[in-house]
Amino acid sequence: MTDEEWRSRASQVIPGGMYGHMSTRALPDGYPQFFRAANGCRLTDVDGNEYIDFMCSYGPMIAGYGHPEIQAAANQQRHDYDIGNGPSKEIVLLAETLTDQVSHAEWAIFAKNGNDATTICNMIARAKSGRRKILVADGAYHGAQPWAARRTNGTPEEDYVHFPTYEFNNIASVVDAAERVRGDLAGIMVSAFKHDAGQPQALTDPEFARVVRKICDDYDAALILDDVRAGMRLSLDASWTEHGVQVDLSAWGKCIGNGEPIAAVLGSEPWREAASRTFVTGSFWYQSAPMASALVTLKVLNEANAPNYIEEVGQHFRDGLAEIAQRHGHGLSQSGPPQMPTVMFDGDTRFEKGNRFCQLALSQGVYLHPWHNMFLSLAHNESVISESLDRLDKAMGQL
Amino acid sequence: MTDEEWRSRASQVIPGGMYGHMSTRALPDGYPQFFRAANGCRLTDVDGNEYIDFMCSYGPMIAGYGHPEIQAAANQQRHDYDIGNGPSKEIVLLAETLTDQVSHAEWAIFAKNGNDATTICNMIARAKSGRRKILVADGAYHGAQPWAARRTNGTPEEDYVHFPTYEFNNIASVVDAAERVRGDLAGIMVSAFKHDAGQPQALTDPEFARVVRKICDDYDAALILDDVRAGMRLSLDASWTEHGVQVDLSAWGKCIGNGEPIAAVLGSEPWREAASRTFVTGSFWYQSAPMASALVTLKVLNEANAPNYIEEVGQHFRDGLAEIAQRHGHGLSQSGPPQMPTVMFDGDTRFEKGNRFCQLALSQGVYLHPWHNMFLSLAHNESVISESLDRLDKAMGQL
Repeated sequence: MTDEEWRSRASQVIPGGMYGHMSTRALPDGYPQFFRAANGCRLTDVDGNEYIDFMCSYGPMIAGYGHPEIQAAANQQRHDYDIGNGPSKEIVLLAETLTDQVSHAEWAIFAKNGNDATTICNMIARAKSGRRKILVADGAYHGAQPWAARRTNGTPEEDYVHFPTYEFNNIASVVDAAERVRGDLAGIMVSAFKHDAGQPQALTDPEFARVVRKICDDYDAALILDDVRAGMRLSLDASWTEHGVQVDLSAWGKCIGNGEPIAAVLGSEPWREAASRTFVTGSFWYQSAPMASALVTLKVLNEANAPNYIEEVGQHFRDGLAEIAQRHGHGLSQSGPPQMPTVMFDGDTRFEKGNRFCQLALSQGVYLHPWHNMFLSLAHNESVISESLDRLDKAMGQL
Repeated sequence: MTDEEWRSRASQVIPGGMYGHMSTRALPDGYPQFFRAANGCRLTDVDGNEYIDFMCSYGPMIAGYGHPEIQAAANQQRHDYDIGNGPSKEIVLLAETLTDQVSHAEWAIFAKNGNDATTICNMIARAKSGRRKILVADGAYHGAQPWAARRTNGTPEEDYVHFPTYEFNNIASVVDAAERVRGDLAGIMVSAFKHDAGQPQALTDPEFARVVRKICDDYDAALILDDVRAGMRLSLDASWTEHGVQVDLSAWGKCIGNGEPIAAVLGSEPWREAASRTFVTGSFWYQSAPMASALVTLKVLNEANAPNYIEEVGQHFRDGLAEIAQRHGHGLSQSGPPQMPTVMFDGDTRFEKGNRFCQLALSQGVYLHPWHNMFLSLAHNESVISESLDRLDKAMGQL
């Protein structure tokens, strides 16, 4: 059965043929919808085409698909105990590991979706303060639940009425937004940096970060960091620590279990009491195998100094792409940290050139994304980057 | 390390020592918090005590912990392909299987939490109708997200302002609730039956079910069945089919993958278009291993005619308990379907006797719950039930 045949069958039993961010509907022709194998940083689609993958499952893969040591730990845990009427000791070990590793964190709660974690942060900020408003950056992604997705189909205004917006990196904007809800401000949610889909990324202005911290101090509100997408790639600590800012609550997900389904809320001491009286739960949140997977994933990331390693190979990739584009006479705009690069062509506002380049890249066996940030991993070693650049040189030559 | 020592360490790094429905805080002393092994219908806690388990992880386990065929399929899938930049063909096979099996269903969307599924149902009902109100039964559990948990800490009123309530099984109440939001009614959410924690369960009055169906038809609103807790135990079809009622949207979770993390929304044809334009997603929702697990779980459940089998052993358990209680002179109130029994002592409004009995049962190696419905599974064969009744006879004798 080919990808086309599976799509045809899918269109009968899945609305629109596929849903959410893994639907290829928003991508140009040529993107495979269905896959059958994953190893290291390589994916094989149902038609047998192999790709060097620069999306890492949109983030969850960070140590390589099928990492032997991580997979063995998860499988052993599944053999011994995965679910039951309570967690295994791994929940304690993982909470200890994360609170040791992440400097603001004194406690942890585990969930499944990154959006579970961001929602729990909101609830705890509100439970502690008795106030309602959580400021969010205009256009930032914190999940697809109604409060986070806003204005999507099926979402009444009341779902996001307590989430007024500010402009990321704009100090006047966040000061003003906080002032406008004075007396009702429970928290300010920030992303690690501006990684909104469909536009160039922007790193966080450290002065902006410090002002947000000060507002939260002045208003006794929670500074909530959504580190779901960037966590463990920018830093093994919370992503804003490098700006000299300690957050109060942080939300994690995606790669902390190298693809096993787990998310986490980490919190500082003053928020512990409110967290303890906030009822949050889910059927699978106590699952032990993803926790065992996360314990080994964190060990592997620490041993490899993953953020630095991935930054280096990411910089190699970025430099190589820039050289190739220049040589072929294309203006390229590369944004965001090298670990999570966004690559766009100058003036290509409708991504026509980007789409075409990504199609050519697929033909050369490289899976890129035309308008979403990409992800690199520990499996993207120098030799893989060089191989990818050789292939992309050919793709660019055909553009 | 003992359970007590792990609790002590947990109290340092997890708010309140544990969160959600798997915290033992609401249970009497003697309940283990941490487990280390699970096999068939038996759990072993970190102290090495073994229990016959009548909670099945609060539902997810239905074919037995560590079911060899199901676990092998999931492990093979993990070996081949679990996550990547799209699903594997298993998503199509599972959607086909469920839409074949569940009579109202023409399409499927998969997620992680049961609460993801109930939330998506709301969004689709609203997207189709352009209206906002979803009626929910007072006291019913549809998840711990703010809209569902209502009035918990950290939840502003706006989160549930569009979820007016009715009384389950009360026809006048649901007619009146619908009438009051006439013009803005998007859907009515129902549980398979009334299984609110802390009180006796009540089976669904078929006449009530038919009236709810008629209201939804008259108002062009969605009849949404939350089958997360009861699904596959009462019926392999949607739980309201036996009342002659076809629902429009149904939410599933817990046991459809025998404990692997997966939830599903199933829908009928008229809701497909709205579903296709409702953006819902999560990092791990396309994971293939839980889908492979679900495919074999459904095969096993069908081959065993699971609802009938579990009902029979559940009836054996219920009859045996009644006989034991009578013989020892205790008045027992047993409610709900035999597959998901709630057992309470007459007049024991504060569960003092129930708590004591459950403690004695634990000492005899039987894990019961004093005020939440319990769950039986395919692993609870006649011999296990007889063994459990022998042990509970001793426990009742000490009461």
